[in-house]
Amino acid sequence: MRNLCMTLTYDGTAYYGFQVQPGGNTIQDHLEDAIRALTGEKVKITGSGRTDAGVHARRQIFNFSTESQIPIERWCIALNSRLPSDIIVIDAVEVSHDFHSRYAAKKKTYRYTVNANQFPDVFNRRLQYHHHAKLDIAAMQEGLRHFIGTYDFTSFASRKSQKDNHVRSVYEAWIEVDRSMCRDHPRDQGVIHIYVSGNGFLQHMVRIIVGTLLEIGEGKRKASDVPNMIAASNRSAAGPTAVSCGLMLWDLEYKKD
Amino acid sequence: MRNLCMTLTYDGTAYYGFQVQPGGNTIQDHLEDAIRALTGEKVKITGSGRTDAGVHARRQIFNFSTESQIPIERWCIALNSRLPSDIIVIDAVEVSHDFHSRYAAKKKTYRYTVNANQFPDVFNRRLQYHHHAKLDIAAMQEGLRHFIGTYDFTSFASRKSQKDNHVRSVYEAWIEVDRSMCRDHPRDQGVIHIYVSGNGFLQHMVRIIVGTLLEIGEGKRKASDVPNMIAASNRSAAGPTAVSCGLMLWDLEYKKD
Repeated sequence: MRNLCMTLTYDGTAYYGFQVQPGGNTIQDHLEDAIRALTGEKVKITGSGRTDAGVHARRQIFNFSTESQIPIERWCIALNSRLPSDIIVIDAVEVSHDFHSRYAAKKKTYRYTVNANQFPDVFNRRLQYHHHAKLDIAAMQEGLRHFIGTYDFTSFASRKSQKDNHVRSVYEAWIEVDRSMCRDHPRDQGVIHIYVSGNGFLQHMVRIIVGTLLEIGEGKRKASDVPNMIAASNRSAAGPTAVSCGLMLWDLEYKKD
Repeated sequence: MRNLCMTLTYDGTAYYGFQVQPGGNTIQDHLEDAIRALTGEKVKITGSGRTDAGVHARRQIFNFSTESQIPIERWCIALNSRLPSDIIVIDAVEVSHDFHSRYAAKKKTYRYTVNANQFPDVFNRRLQYHHHAKLDIAAMQEGLRHFIGTYDFTSFASRKSQKDNHVRSVYEAWIEVDRSMCRDHPRDQGVIHIYVSGNGFLQHMVRIIVGTLLEIGEGKRKASDVPNMIAASNRSAAGPTAVSCGLMLWDLEYKKD
């Protein structure tokens, strides 16, 4: 048996998330179907983690065991020709038998994109949440800084979270503002990319952080209140969950063997 | 009667081009329906020009006459709420009665995008033609320069063109290569943006220029042969028509009043 590790990228708009669900039509379903069509084997793949329905990945990792002797350099093209056009495998390597995509992940980075210009960007509308009201971006940056550190993030997890332990470490978090689509118009505030990087994330965690930052940007909450929201360990202390389409699994870092 | 001029942007993937067709589902149909829903008037709009099925517009202009007294600053939001999400009106101004979107256009710029990296870009797949074979980009640049000037472009027009006069002026034409998506891999050649700007374009003209440049890039034709292809005044002297999804109406320049 070989243990193969693959990198993929996907537009999550049409799918019910990464992980297999009773209703089907997940990224994992399509990958397992493509591997079965190619090798005849019914495999179960392991992803670095789940992404929710509608969430995208610039870079996601999965691994699986196979008896197939197909040379490693053929896998990307062979799988891509059996996958829908919004899921693309971009790298394939053979790894040691004990490699596990989830356990070996050291750091994950998500990016959430808020288009704060007057009009939606028609060519990126599936990848952005369009928010046309005035935002105080400096206050959002201040609020975001309070998430860096190791905390119990119960206030920032879905009430449906089934994890026993809600302690997670956020290593870095920053905002980049892209003004390339701005016209000379006061309602064009730029496209705001919010990056959050850490050792792992609870269900909806990045989207609740963003929903809270948007309320801070609107002046409904104070940036300096974030530590109290975290300390409350209560979902109702934080802001709403931002819509899924703005979220993208941006990057993954793995332990060196 | 007021003459209103509007700027719009659209993702053309789902439409049968700009101009009304017997089968419906064109950009013009949706705009006229939205105006009728808003004002109750059955108007006929005039675009700066057609775009083919599947072609996009970063910036397109149309004008129409209306009895409506809706203030000019309300039009964008009012129409956008009645349009599909892939068609967005981004500016509205009242113009003089003799303004005509097509006659007053002085210069049009189209951009065609060829993704020459190993893999498609999943987030821009609707806006790019993916060409994974080796391309000689310097030869394509040399070939493109031969199109600048005033010529009879019959060789670069659809055989279905109904224009009497095929003489057009190409003012500028250039290539930009975006290597931001390239990995350290010999098959990643970058995303090639081909810009062509002129006083007007024949049906399929930019796509036939691009199809010819791709054959030059593949070594099937010589850049120095472009003048002969133009001089032949025969569609069969030029290369194939590149697929529509890579084409975008990029910009328009109007006569100053």
